[in-house]
Amino acid sequence: METSPNEFSQAEIQLAMRNHGAPLEALRRPLTPPGLHYLLIHFDVPFADAADWRVEVTGLVREPLSLGLDDLAGLPQITQPLTMECAGNGRARLRPRIVSQPWNLEAVGTAEWTGVRVRDVLERAGVLDDAVEVVFEGADRGIDGGVEQAYARSLSLDDALAGDVMLAHTANGAPLLPQHGHPLRLVVPGWYGMTNVKWLRSIRVVREPFDGYQQSRAYTIRVSDDDPGTPVTRMLPRSLMVPPGIPDFMSRERFVDGGAVELEGRAWSGWGRIESVEVSADGGRSWEPARLGEPLGPNAWAGWSYEWTPDGPGRYELCSAATDETGRRQPLEPVWNTGGYCNNAVQRVAVTVRAAT
Amino acid sequence: METSPNEFSQAEIQLAMRNHGAPLEALRRPLTPPGLHYLLIHFDVPFADAADWRVEVTGLVREPLSLGLDDLAGLPQITQPLTMECAGNGRARLRPRIVSQPWNLEAVGTAEWTGVRVRDVLERAGVLDDAVEVVFEGADRGIDGGVEQAYARSLSLDDALAGDVMLAHTANGAPLLPQHGHPLRLVVPGWYGMTNVKWLRSIRVVREPFDGYQQSRAYTIRVSDDDPGTPVTRMLPRSLMVPPGIPDFMSRERFVDGGAVELEGRAWSGWGRIESVEVSADGGRSWEPARLGEPLGPNAWAGWSYEWTPDGPGRYELCSAATDETGRRQPLEPVWNTGGYCNNAVQRVAVTVRAAT
Repeated sequence: METSPNEFSQAEIQLAMRNHGAPLEALRRPLTPPGLHYLLIHFDVPFADAADWRVEVTGLVREPLSLGLDDLAGLPQITQPLTMECAGNGRARLRPRIVSQPWNLEAVGTAEWTGVRVRDVLERAGVLDDAVEVVFEGADRGIDGGVEQAYARSLSLDDALAGDVMLAHTANGAPLLPQHGHPLRLVVPGWYGMTNVKWLRSIRVVREPFDGYQQSRAYTIRVSDDDPGTPVTRMLPRSLMVPPGIPDFMSRERFVDGGAVELEGRAWSGWGRIESVEVSADGGRSWEPARLGEPLGPNAWAGWSYEWTPDGPGRYELCSAATDETGRRQPLEPVWNTGGYCNNAVQRVAVTVRAAT
Repeated sequence: METSPNEFSQAEIQLAMRNHGAPLEALRRPLTPPGLHYLLIHFDVPFADAADWRVEVTGLVREPLSLGLDDLAGLPQITQPLTMECAGNGRARLRPRIVSQPWNLEAVGTAEWTGVRVRDVLERAGVLDDAVEVVFEGADRGIDGGVEQAYARSLSLDDALAGDVMLAHTANGAPLLPQHGHPLRLVVPGWYGMTNVKWLRSIRVVREPFDGYQQSRAYTIRVSDDDPGTPVTRMLPRSLMVPPGIPDFMSRERFVDGGAVELEGRAWSGWGRIESVEVSADGGRSWEPARLGEPLGPNAWAGWSYEWTPDGPGRYELCSAATDETGRRQPLEPVWNTGGYCNNAVQRVAVTVRAAT
């Protein structure tokens, strides 16, 4: 096993042991099994009780609302499969290093979410004319970047009113797990995970753009600290493969025996339908098209597969690259920014093909 | 925020993002919610199908058996709450560092397991006279320490026949999650987690002590590489507290406002009943007894609580220490060994008490 230099701190390890990705073999399943969907909790899990939960709808509305889960049950229900990825996915691969939750590639999951449209809630409240944004605030509270805060994010009024933006109370047919926002969270199809405020207790319609920490300081793409930055929004295209063969425990390097190997994986983009997935067995020098399946839904991943016949025993670097209908393609190399966001560089899987015995 | 030196490698981060602990606020719950119970997967999750799962009972038995889940349903069923902890819990705190899954303190969980006694299965098969051990092998396969293997561990015949050693198909009333061994795993009350072979497909009764990698090389306490070592078996006593107040996202340091703070946590030992939990607010120099609740079961944690009244604003280091009925007590400082096992040194929680505003 090759050893890698020590580049990560105890503080990052603490975060890494609380939060977790989806083990990549979970990509075999179209829906990520409970407890394997990636998870990033900024502060603490509130462990809330559904029976007395209220979400307050306030601000620039004709009629402020205080809604329990039973009130939401009276609104039309929608169910949709959605792929959700952390904006920091890929951060641990960036150099110079960025100290935060150290995701490699695994901060993703797909669930079938059930709940009500934000539009239906806001129509009941009656949005007033001066409104420009909607601020969503959760029950989790802590300090980030020196600022005490409840976790909060905003959407433009147009984005909040979009058809499939929802308040979800159910995932894969069961009430949300505590760590995924029980009993209620925002879910915004196609956007990175920071958008999807968990343990939602406040929806506030405002006349000025929200400048909370998670909106204006975190989750912006900056090339330097004094760069005003551009907001992180939709998920860039990414494909991931189920690592083939068997792993080494510590390095996670893979070993396969000679002969054809069926590679499989999933691909998604928050900007549009995936148009193609290509596979490379030589670290990205040459590419072959993979077979692409139908997406699980308009905002959920599509499966892909590729029959790989190695040239013989030896060491290979497998990659896959997705391109979406807008022409966005995964880059071969990461694009650095100060927060370590949106690194959708291609996955690289080290595989040793062993001689047939 | 204080910064810590970079001591961890990319390989450890990879493992850390696959496996996860229980966020310590989950200690509020007597049973760890699904998906928050700690998880260590040596190789890959096999994603097995319950319908055609078989466990083979072979070796020194009168009648070899091939049992499906429906066969096991015909045996007497038992249900028991069990606290399970990884033998590597605390490893990341050891210096010199040990490179493996970098647990801090959070590799624990408690579930209510349902299944059949191993004794009932072995009685059906009829153990022959020369038998000394029983080898349990899972479906997960990979390379560890340079050795290709399916994950396997053994128990002495006496330990395997003990009353509550079980094959579990259900946790907290639901079929096992894929990552916890679906559809069947071994569960041995009081022992560290490596004992509890997941995705169990073979039970082999043998006449010689098993010398597989996970038995004779991993999971032994050694002070040097040429030390033959002593096997890791039962869980040493440990207590953990729910970190009070609110966290800083990155450092996880805690902030509470002035006045009394109700501290709470859980304590367990695989060697016997917890007799006392003590709390220190000065990093272990002075101790006060906590109130100790009833354990959830003979082999499950007990809750504890302590009303802490800080002397005033400032920085404190909270600790808790458990002692069990055998007199084993958590040490203040870790005891180093080459594998980084069984570090049950007291938890230290940095808390800043803020002036009342």
